Amino acid sequence: MKQSIAENHLGFGDKMKVLILGGAGMIGQKLAHDIAANGLSGDTAHELILHDIITPPWNGKGSPTLLTGNISDPETSTALAASKPDLIYFLSAIVSGDAEANFAKGWDINMRSAWNLFEAIRAEHEASNGRYKPKVIFSSSLAVFSGPYPDTIPDDFFTAPQSSYGAQKAAVELLLADYVRKGFMDGFSMRLPTICVRPGKPNLAASSFYSSIIREPLNGQEAILPVPETLRHWFASPKSAVGFMTHAASISASQLGKHLSLNLPGVSCTVADQIEALHDIAGADVVKLIKREPNEAIQNIVMGWPERFAAKRALNLGFQADKDFKAIIQTYIDTELCHK
Amino acid sequence: MKQSIAENHLGFGDKMKVLILGGAGMIGQKLAHDIAANGLSGDTAHELILHDIITPPWNGKGSPTLLTGNISDPETSTALAASKPDLIYFLSAIVSGDAEANFAKGWDINMRSAWNLFEAIRAEHEASNGRYKPKVIFSSSLAVFSGPYPDTIPDDFFTAPQSSYGAQKAAVELLLADYVRKGFMDGFSMRLPTICVRPGKPNLAASSFYSSIIREPLNGQEAILPVPETLRHWFASPKSAVGFMTHAASISASQLGKHLSLNLPGVSCTVADQIEALHDIAGADVVKLIKREPNEAIQNIVMGWPERFAAKRALNLGFQADKDFKAIIQTYIDTELCHK
Repeated sequence: MKQSIAENHLGFGDKMKVLILGGAGMIGQKLAHDIAANGLSGDTAHELILHDIITPPWNGKGSPTLLTGNISDPETSTALAASKPDLIYFLSAIVSGDAEANFAKGWDINMRSAWNLFEAIRAEHEASNGRYKPKVIFSSSLAVFSGPYPDTIPDDFFTAPQSSYGAQKAAVELLLADYVRKGFMDGFSMRLPTICVRPGKPNLAASSFYSSIIREPLNGQEAILPVPETLRHWFASPKSAVGFMTHAASISASQLGKHLSLNLPGVSCTVADQIEALHDIAGADVVKLIKREPNEAIQNIVMGWPERFAAKRALNLGFQADKDFKAIIQTYIDTELCHK
Repeated sequence: MKQSIAENHLGFGDKMKVLILGGAGMIGQKLAHDIAANGLSGDTAHELILHDIITPPWNGKGSPTLLTGNISDPETSTALAASKPDLIYFLSAIVSGDAEANFAKGWDINMRSAWNLFEAIRAEHEASNGRYKPKVIFSSSLAVFSGPYPDTIPDDFFTAPQSSYGAQKAAVELLLADYVRKGFMDGFSMRLPTICVRPGKPNLAASSFYSSIIREPLNGQEAILPVPETLRHWFASPKSAVGFMTHAASISASQLGKHLSLNLPGVSCTVADQIEALHDIAGADVVKLIKREPNEAIQNIVMGWPERFAAKRALNLGFQADKDFKAIIQTYIDTELCHK
C-alpha cells in the first residue's frame, strides 16, 4: 500500500523539494521542524521551503528557505510553481471567523489563491511536457459539512457548508480533484479534525475556545466557554496533525480512487468530556478557571459542526488518531508546557 | 408553499426584469418564448432580456432586449448586474465534451463567469444598501455526481464529479449557496436531468447521442449509438425543463432549507427502453436507422452518470417530470416535427 517518496519524486534536482504554504502557522511550523528533524518516510534528503504572509520563524535543524508574500497574488503562485517543488503542503488560510466577517478576503485567500497555484502548476506541467507533476496536500476542513448528521458520519457524506470558510474549502477540493484527475498534478484533500490543544493565544477561529478551555486553565488563566457542555465535536492533537501530513506524503491520489477528499480519524468527545479529562489530569482548581459565557455568534457557527466520523478510508490508508482526549491534553503538556 | 413573483419583486421598476443568460441556447429560447407568451406565475408584466455569445434570435411575442457578449468578461457581469434584473436564469455554459477538451475555457466560462456575476450582484446589493437582491436560478447538472450509485439516488447524495464540466457546476453551486446564505441574493441550483429529445443538430455534449438516436430516425436519418443498450439514465423533455425554470421563479431559497442544490424529477430508462418507445411510436423501419458504433471516449464520460433519483424535495416543491419516455418522444413530435 505504501509508496516511497522516491517513487513519486520526479528528479528535478537531487533532493526532494518540499514547499509548505502557511509555513509560519502552527501546523506549518511543527510540520517543517518535524520534516527537518526526521525527514519524510525515512528520506532525509530534502530541501525545505516555508512560505507565509509573515517571515516564517525557524529554530530547527538545517536552513530552510523562508519566503514572505501574499498567496492571493497570482505572481506569488507563478513564482512558487516556477521553483518546481515536488511536494506542496497547502496549509495557508484565514480562519473561519475571519472568513465569515470578511467575505471577499475569505474567498480570495482561501479559494482563489489555491486556484492560482493550481493554474501555475498546470502551466509548469505543460511547459515541461508533463515531466513536472508535483503532489499537493490540501488542508481542508469539517466545515464543508452541515447537519443534520448521522451518529457516525460516513466517508461519502455530502457537503453543504454553512460558513464561507467551509464553502471555500469545499470549492478548493473540487478544483484540486479536477486538476489531479486531468493529470496536471498528484495529491488529495484532507479534512482535518479540529486541532486541539493549540498552543499560544486565542485566534479568530470560531473553534478557538476548544483549545482555550484547556490551555488557559493549565496556564493558570481564566477561559471562556461560549457553548453548552453537551456539544460534541471531533479532535486531533497538533502532533497527530503533523503525523497526518507526513503520512500523506507517502500516499498518491490513485490510492484514494475517484473521491479525493479524505475524512481523517480523530477523537469524538463533548465539552463535558474535555473538562472531565482536564479534571483528571490537572484537578478541580484548574477546571474552575473555565467560565460559562454563552455566545450566540460562536454557537451559530460551531453548533452545526459534525460530531463523529467513521474515517474508514483514512484508517485503511494508515492515518492514525490520538487515543482519547486525555492523550490530547497530555500531548499539549509534553510538547508545550514542559518546554517552559 | 407557493410564493408569487410579486412578493419577490423589489420594485426597481414597474415591471419585473427577467434576464436569461444563455438566451440563444435551446432551453433559453424556449424559456424566453414561454415567458413572453404566458408570463411567470400568471404575472405578464415583465421585461425580458436575453444575453448570449451570439445575438439571441426572436420570433415570439413582444420585443425582448437581445444582448451579445462574452459572459466570462468581468465587464459583462458588471454591466448585467448594473441593469438590476430581478430574476436571473443562469443557463450559459459550454457543454461537457467541450469543457473536457478545453480545460481553461471550461473553468472560465462555466465557473469564473458565475463567480464574476455573483460578485457584480454583491456590489449592486451593497451599493443599494441591500435593496437590490435578485433571484438567481442556476442550471446545474447530474455531472456533479459519480458512481457507484444506489438504485435510487437520495437528495443528499454526495458530489464527486468525474468531469471538468461536473466539477465546474459543483463549484458554482457552492458559490451560489454562500452568496445566498450571506443575503446578497436569493436563488438556488437545479440539477437538471439530461434534456431529451433536443431539437436541431448533435452538439459536443457527451450526452448528445441520447437525443440523436430518437431525433435523427424520426427525421429519416441514421444515428450513431456509441454505448450499450443496457445503459440507464435520467431524462426530461425540453418542455419539462421550461416548466422547471418557470416554476423555480415562484420558489425562494428559504423553502429549500440549508441545502440549495436541488435534484429535479425525471424519467429513468435504459437505451433499450428509449428504442422500444421509439418503436412503439414510429415503427421498426425508423428504429433500424440506429447504428451501433461503440465509442470509448463517450462511454468513459456517460457510463459514470447516474440512473435514477428520488428527487423528493423537488417533487414536494411542486416540480413535475414527464410521464414516461414515450411522452418525451411525443413532446418532440408535437413541438418540433409538426411545425415543419
